Amino acid sequence: MPALPVRDDLRAVRPYNTRPFPSMGDPVALLNNNESPRPPEGRHLETLCSAASRALATANRYPDTDLAALRSALARYAGHGVRADMVWPGNGSNEVLLHLLQTYGGPGRTALGFVPTYSMHEQIATITGTRWTSADRGSDFGLNHEVAAAAVEQHRPDIVFLCAPNNPTGTPLDRATLDVILRTAPGLVVLDEAYVEFSAIGTQAGLLAEHPQLVISRTMSKAFGFAGIRVGFLLASPDVLSPLRIVALPYHLSTLTAAVALAALEQADELLAHIPGVLAERGRMRDALVDAGHAVMPSDANFLFFDTGTDSSTMAAGLAGRGVLVRDVGPAGWLRVTVGHPDENNVFLKALFELSS
Amino acid sequence: MPALPVRDDLRAVRPYNTRPFPSMGDPVALLNNNESPRPPEGRHLETLCSAASRALATANRYPDTDLAALRSALARYAGHGVRADMVWPGNGSNEVLLHLLQTYGGPGRTALGFVPTYSMHEQIATITGTRWTSADRGSDFGLNHEVAAAAVEQHRPDIVFLCAPNNPTGTPLDRATLDVILRTAPGLVVLDEAYVEFSAIGTQAGLLAEHPQLVISRTMSKAFGFAGIRVGFLLASPDVLSPLRIVALPYHLSTLTAAVALAALEQADELLAHIPGVLAERGRMRDALVDAGHAVMPSDANFLFFDTGTDSSTMAAGLAGRGVLVRDVGPAGWLRVTVGHPDENNVFLKALFELSS
Repeated sequence: MPALPVRDDLRAVRPYNTRPFPSMGDPVALLNNNESPRPPEGRHLETLCSAASRALATANRYPDTDLAALRSALARYAGHGVRADMVWPGNGSNEVLLHLLQTYGGPGRTALGFVPTYSMHEQIATITGTRWTSADRGSDFGLNHEVAAAAVEQHRPDIVFLCAPNNPTGTPLDRATLDVILRTAPGLVVLDEAYVEFSAIGTQAGLLAEHPQLVISRTMSKAFGFAGIRVGFLLASPDVLSPLRIVALPYHLSTLTAAVALAALEQADELLAHIPGVLAERGRMRDALVDAGHAVMPSDANFLFFDTGTDSSTMAAGLAGRGVLVRDVGPAGWLRVTVGHPDENNVFLKALFELSS
Repeated sequence: MPALPVRDDLRAVRPYNTRPFPSMGDPVALLNNNESPRPPEGRHLETLCSAASRALATANRYPDTDLAALRSALARYAGHGVRADMVWPGNGSNEVLLHLLQTYGGPGRTALGFVPTYSMHEQIATITGTRWTSADRGSDFGLNHEVAAAAVEQHRPDIVFLCAPNNPTGTPLDRATLDVILRTAPGLVVLDEAYVEFSAIGTQAGLLAEHPQLVISRTMSKAFGFAGIRVGFLLASPDVLSPLRIVALPYHLSTLTAAVALAALEQADELLAHIPGVLAERGRMRDALVDAGHAVMPSDANFLFFDTGTDSSTMAAGLAGRGVLVRDVGPAGWLRVTVGHPDENNVFLKALFELSS
């Protein structure tokens, strides 16, 4: 027992589980985190290392709090008329969503999400004292605009969370659903676009100018292959973002992180050139799963959500025993698998089929 | 106006001000942030760059959430029987203090500080919805054990903040005061040791074993010259630290930050070898200020707190006009100046004396 108990509303909350299988075989296919299978290499790696070296040479001084250069580069990358004052960077998209909920959530405020969805939305609401409510996506994991409108009408949430494409289901967000929520939500609408670079629909950043209640969250963890570096950012009107300076800790993003993020953004075209290959590989995996009789959700992301046809936690543990990590985040029977390196994907498919037979 | 107003209790709160002088001369003496004036150089810089390069080569994968290697190295550095499970690292000491207040503060809980002190203690309490109360240090900025005990008795705070040496006054914390607070505080006692490497008294980490309510916060921003890298850590019992996993965002510290922090800790002896020089320079600056008729607080840190004998904001602005940055954080008349590079210190002293005459 600590000298002071944890605050009441956190006692039943469990940490986000980043280690689902404490004992597992030697990892041969890391398909549980929707990471890019491609480490930085060659000229790209050299450019990142040079940027890091220059940043380290000024490590004794605090970072630029404004992050002006990084915000400009992220705005250019976001396109669609996004300006630097519409960008809020942080240590991963979770941190910038935390800043948003610290500022606009809290006791007496409500956030609504459509489940199953990215579990950190609820976690971030909870740790900021924001009441979390949810509505069910239904059996096809899509988000019907009538279901969405009814939930907004019922809960009148201060903050609505949408996720496009949705994690863990991979399903795209219907434009009619987005429109009805933007029209009816009484407060902010957060659109989590963590996987948008893999999406056929693409970003909704073009809507920011006409929808001051819209906040888009993005990350460099996925398509950029920057999961280990921790860079995420919000896109929103300056009126929404400016108050975040109250809750963000001074110098929250390091000189080093800003420098390597900037170097990666300057190489965005080359870095994102692998995406068509990921989509082709996603199609191959999907076909193999369907051929084997599995239901697979339509995916607009770098992962697939499929019905194991059996107990998913037993299956996930069986895969882990063979060094194949996937994510078991419910609903029962379903698993999420990252589109990894073709060799990893083959190992996964082989292990799945052997365990299923 | 944003689509949703900022939560009620934040409306009167202003961001931590990291840019006190928007228009200033070319900077010639950066003595406002208590940074180390020594950038990484030579073999040290090479070692940091190598560590960064190795980390960047795995940037596509999420960091080790456990931060096991870093916690072990920080435990060895902390000494005094501190084990790895008594260490909680984060992006600067502000972030780890935020984790602590997110877990143990919040609505219905109270934090007590002794002012003037580090302003982020109040800010972090406020943004987590923790009620902030304060007691005055008195005219000598010391913290008398009777004043401390009376304030604890009056407020019965869930969390007491102490700062040793205190920022911005530089004054040491009396051991009798610490003892009385550890004996009488009903909840956690946070001891901010950001500047402890410069202190003649040294760390109180040896008290952790017998005082499960004690939490020590430390940073690599000051003595290690790592302000731009953002590494801070708490030292406390595992019972206190373990619940912080609920509020800490997954993968909160990057692979890159952990790698360069580890490389710096491996060179701790060389990196901290400059401290006697800082203390000698502190003595020289203090003597010069005293000779010029200024009252100067006894300092146990890498900065001095002195009475300008005039309006401190006018003096700070005058210094800024000459490219000399110092910190004006009250009380009226007093300024805080970092012990910087001898050349910077001479520029500061010359400018101060010219502006005073």
